[in-house]
Amino acid sequence: MKIIRSPEEMQQEALLLRGNGRTIGLVPTMGYLHEGHLSLIRLARERANAVVVSIFVNPTQFAPNEDLTRYPRDFVRDEALCQSQGADMVFYPTATDMYLPDHSVYVVEESLTSGLCGASRPTHFRGVATVVAKLFNLALPQVAVFGEKDAQQLRVIKRMVRDLNFPVSIVPGPIVREPDGLAMSSRNVFLSTEERAQALCLRRALDRAEELFRQGERKTAELLRNMQEVMAQCPAARIDYIECVDDESLKPVTEIGKPCLIAMAVFVGKTRLIDNTVLRAP
Amino acid sequence: MKIIRSPEEMQQEALLLRGNGRTIGLVPTMGYLHEGHLSLIRLARERANAVVVSIFVNPTQFAPNEDLTRYPRDFVRDEALCQSQGADMVFYPTATDMYLPDHSVYVVEESLTSGLCGASRPTHFRGVATVVAKLFNLALPQVAVFGEKDAQQLRVIKRMVRDLNFPVSIVPGPIVREPDGLAMSSRNVFLSTEERAQALCLRRALDRAEELFRQGERKTAELLRNMQEVMAQCPAARIDYIECVDDESLKPVTEIGKPCLIAMAVFVGKTRLIDNTVLRAP
Repeated sequence: MKIIRSPEEMQQEALLLRGNGRTIGLVPTMGYLHEGHLSLIRLARERANAVVVSIFVNPTQFAPNEDLTRYPRDFVRDEALCQSQGADMVFYPTATDMYLPDHSVYVVEESLTSGLCGASRPTHFRGVATVVAKLFNLALPQVAVFGEKDAQQLRVIKRMVRDLNFPVSIVPGPIVREPDGLAMSSRNVFLSTEERAQALCLRRALDRAEELFRQGERKTAELLRNMQEVMAQCPAARIDYIECVDDESLKPVTEIGKPCLIAMAVFVGKTRLIDNTVLRAP
Repeated sequence: MKIIRSPEEMQQEALLLRGNGRTIGLVPTMGYLHEGHLSLIRLARERANAVVVSIFVNPTQFAPNEDLTRYPRDFVRDEALCQSQGADMVFYPTATDMYLPDHSVYVVEESLTSGLCGASRPTHFRGVATVVAKLFNLALPQVAVFGEKDAQQLRVIKRMVRDLNFPVSIVPGPIVREPDGLAMSSRNVFLSTEERAQALCLRRALDRAEELFRQGERKTAELLRNMQEVMAQCPAARIDYIECVDDESLKPVTEIGKPCLIAMAVFVGKTRLIDNTVLRAP
């Protein structure tokens, strides 16, 4: 398995692979890998014969008040995990090499990013779309895998690929959960024992909504009321947002007809956790 | 020579060419081709063995008050001209196929676009960068040729390639002029006989600046004063801007040390013309 630090070298390697007829699968990550990431690497393996895992804690998707410097990192462990999943290359650039001092070009999405995480993190998706565009141009994948936990991100990236015509097929990877239901996240490491217990309220609230939906409830106000009831049982949890939105446009929905995304972001202590589910009428 | 209208087909053709080891050269144009464009096609021919000319009057780079609908078009003539220069493909998409009704992703450049044409046309370069990113992803060129007449555009595209890591090498094509010095432009067709004569003032003003620079003048205020003097002789010409800027940052320069771009935009009647020159100390 090759470790590549230089963006130029990554692009040269990718051009070489493409010239040799290889199919490149890219798994963009911020490192501190968990089983969720590893499942994405395995998905990439199924679809491609050259798997590139990028590990880059992208500064442009963090606001000044966010946890960029605290974000957990462990490259030695990440490297071993990538190898164990059969990755062919790890692309591990520095921020200085990715962003020149006078960099001035961004990719912006202006519709899907107005609500949900985009409302609380106004420059976040600009940073995400920009770095993913860069990674696509450097690793030149035919296939790129993104986790469904970052529901809005996945939809923004799909929209970017569609609107800018990137020759990349986006493969979503299902959310991977701890045995007790907590969605895996690199940020879970920040949770104290008490917070870890309270963090289960996200999955429980989604469970309640899914259960009501199965029983025939279609009014999102009712689903949201019930979810807030569940959340109230976890005093350490402060809701950033819980919303029911159209799965495609991400616009709020009052009565569920087409597939509906329930997305939530919750601070448990100082740690911001996200989770989601898609409700589809049978 | 192939005519391709569908973006999907363009991308498939490009992938096929790349798979066969071909080098693709792209010449993005808005059609109504003149000798300036043809010189760019020939430049692409020298560097690539598959030349794609795109012809697309891109709506997103025109403001509502600008000349989108009036912009001259003649596809039959353009097709013959492309063939005469040995182009392999003409990509001629519709606006509807290029921009879905809910398209929402743009490429923005936030430093080089604040002045010059970006000041009078605030959404212009967002439209240009976005469509060029799309064309790069559809035609997948290793080489793309842009004319130096659109000085700011050329620098914005180079910056986009650098900052988003497009695997494309940008080749600039020198300005091609009519025998009397007027820079070739599809918009020259709008000029009346009287306006055509007055339009020479752009080149004359640049000539004056070049002459003073050769004689040792380094103060841009002095160059600009002289250029305005020349412009005053053409009453039909209304200056949009004349500026001396650093050739790299496009920031205003008062005393010329590093290469300096003198760029100008002038309305002659209702037609907006641009021209420029780069002053380099020997």
